[in-house]
Amino acid sequence: MAAQRPRRVRIVEVGPRDGLQNEAAAIPTNVKVRFVDLLSEAGFNWIEVTSFVHPRAVPQMADADEVFRAIGKKPGVRYVALVPNPRGLDRALAAGVEDIALFVAASESFSRANINRSIEQSLEDAHQVTTASRLAGARVRAYISVAFGCPYEGPVSPARVLPVAERLFELGAEEVVLGDTIGVATPSDVSRLMDVLLPLAPADRWGMHFHDTRGMALANVMASLDVGLSHFDSSAGGLGGCPFAGPGAAGNVATEDLLYLLDGVGVEHRVDLDRVLEASRFIVDAVGHPLTSKVYQAGGRLTTIPAPR
Amino acid sequence: MAAQRPRRVRIVEVGPRDGLQNEAAAIPTNVKVRFVDLLSEAGFNWIEVTSFVHPRAVPQMADADEVFRAIGKKPGVRYVALVPNPRGLDRALAAGVEDIALFVAASESFSRANINRSIEQSLEDAHQVTTASRLAGARVRAYISVAFGCPYEGPVSPARVLPVAERLFELGAEEVVLGDTIGVATPSDVSRLMDVLLPLAPADRWGMHFHDTRGMALANVMASLDVGLSHFDSSAGGLGGCPFAGPGAAGNVATEDLLYLLDGVGVEHRVDLDRVLEASRFIVDAVGHPLTSKVYQAGGRLTTIPAPR
Repeated sequence: MAAQRPRRVRIVEVGPRDGLQNEAAAIPTNVKVRFVDLLSEAGFNWIEVTSFVHPRAVPQMADADEVFRAIGKKPGVRYVALVPNPRGLDRALAAGVEDIALFVAASESFSRANINRSIEQSLEDAHQVTTASRLAGARVRAYISVAFGCPYEGPVSPARVLPVAERLFELGAEEVVLGDTIGVATPSDVSRLMDVLLPLAPADRWGMHFHDTRGMALANVMASLDVGLSHFDSSAGGLGGCPFAGPGAAGNVATEDLLYLLDGVGVEHRVDLDRVLEASRFIVDAVGHPLTSKVYQAGGRLTTIPAPR
Repeated sequence: MAAQRPRRVRIVEVGPRDGLQNEAAAIPTNVKVRFVDLLSEAGFNWIEVTSFVHPRAVPQMADADEVFRAIGKKPGVRYVALVPNPRGLDRALAAGVEDIALFVAASESFSRANINRSIEQSLEDAHQVTTASRLAGARVRAYISVAFGCPYEGPVSPARVLPVAERLFELGAEEVVLGDTIGVATPSDVSRLMDVLLPLAPADRWGMHFHDTRGMALANVMASLDVGLSHFDSSAGGLGGCPFAGPGAAGNVATEDLLYLLDGVGVEHRVDLDRVLEASRFIVDAVGHPLTSKVYQAGGRLTTIPAPR
């Protein structure tokens, strides 16, 4: 692992989708739109906006079309939408989506429990979605969920992730994103997995999607940087989680905490922390519970206060 | 930074002191004693038990003598007590304490705000305490608080920490513990500080005391391991914080999360995670609020659940 730590990273802000998807409170459409717009203003080049999943499966995302159409689209920013299957893709393309995210699980039990499809069936769906996306001129990022551990099967070995990743690249995925869906990975798991995967495709074809269920997310980001990776998902305020991932599944790594870390270690990200904090302060009332981001809770960077006399 | 990552670490469990000290609820003496005993059973070789501070300053620690006398002392375990000044030392020695912790701040404003003493006056106190301790056969670990940043002065440069550390070693401190009291450090701060400090004394004469105020604690532990450090403070459940450290000051790095990380990266610690979780579950009712440890919240290590049919 003599990789050079990257000087710059690209963050995909996933709060509006992976974050809000799991919220119990019904979030009004205009609030979602404003949230995405605030994040656009914060400087992200990639934002995962919504999911064109069936409204019965995820009622929170029933207004995907409306949200996607209503957001202000800044030139150069890639507004991603999750598409679980070919039917979702039609809706997404009709709404003007040009960046598609799809997912395939690394464990058979998770795939069946989550979407009632085997991994092989799920890869067939992915084949249809990528083919149709490319015909329509849309780009695809493909997630591998439970890439480190599965709530039903336990640890997932790199040998099981490799063939799924290989297939997704063959199908034409621009990048493959490794999801620690239930937040069990540690830094050694990251380097072990990437030892196996990096021969398949260069570092800039991989993304990392960490959940902070056991508090490991930022240590895992450091381990990812150390093997040369530079694409990270995070969610404003630490919103989100995976409702299918079993008890204790906590949120995505918080964008604020990620930015603080990157600033500290001198890795460029081009996102405005204060504006992300503003977006989090905007959304906190709508979700109706405290946000988990530590930097958000601490109020941001170190600011000094007058010493007592 | 070509240091060898240590194969084994030593953890000082500070929950009973740095943790409970900051709790609003009055914790009964017998509960504190049972908490320490549960931690002894979890396998720690070092436990910071209490503080012989003036009861008016920290009412929660008014029963320091009683607690220290009542705990079951396992052979080979070092039961540490914090001593803020020479008066506290007399009480500690009378109670049978053989391991003293003292602290000196790295910033003048923090020292004055916290204990109404200049750094120089505080070093004079430390001189008295170390001299008297050694005469009594007790050993001293010396904390440098706000070693990375100060709520009144902002970032603290390594050049300001160095002379304080030098003096503490000269006074006979067995180890110097670098406290990120307000949780602002990032991994680069750790390596920058240790670049300056390690020429002064070998890695096993330094301890690291991280607070997780901005979520950086475990990433900082990784950075510490990477420069060869192997002594860490942590608190069960993530109890604690610093009431003097200004708004947003959060708890110590949680022992459970630290153990999970160390297990993941293959660093030995000889502490039983399940028993620490038991100690945390025991203390949670007494403190009357949820604990912040993510591993505690997630229920521990990855355990599998039956897949739905």
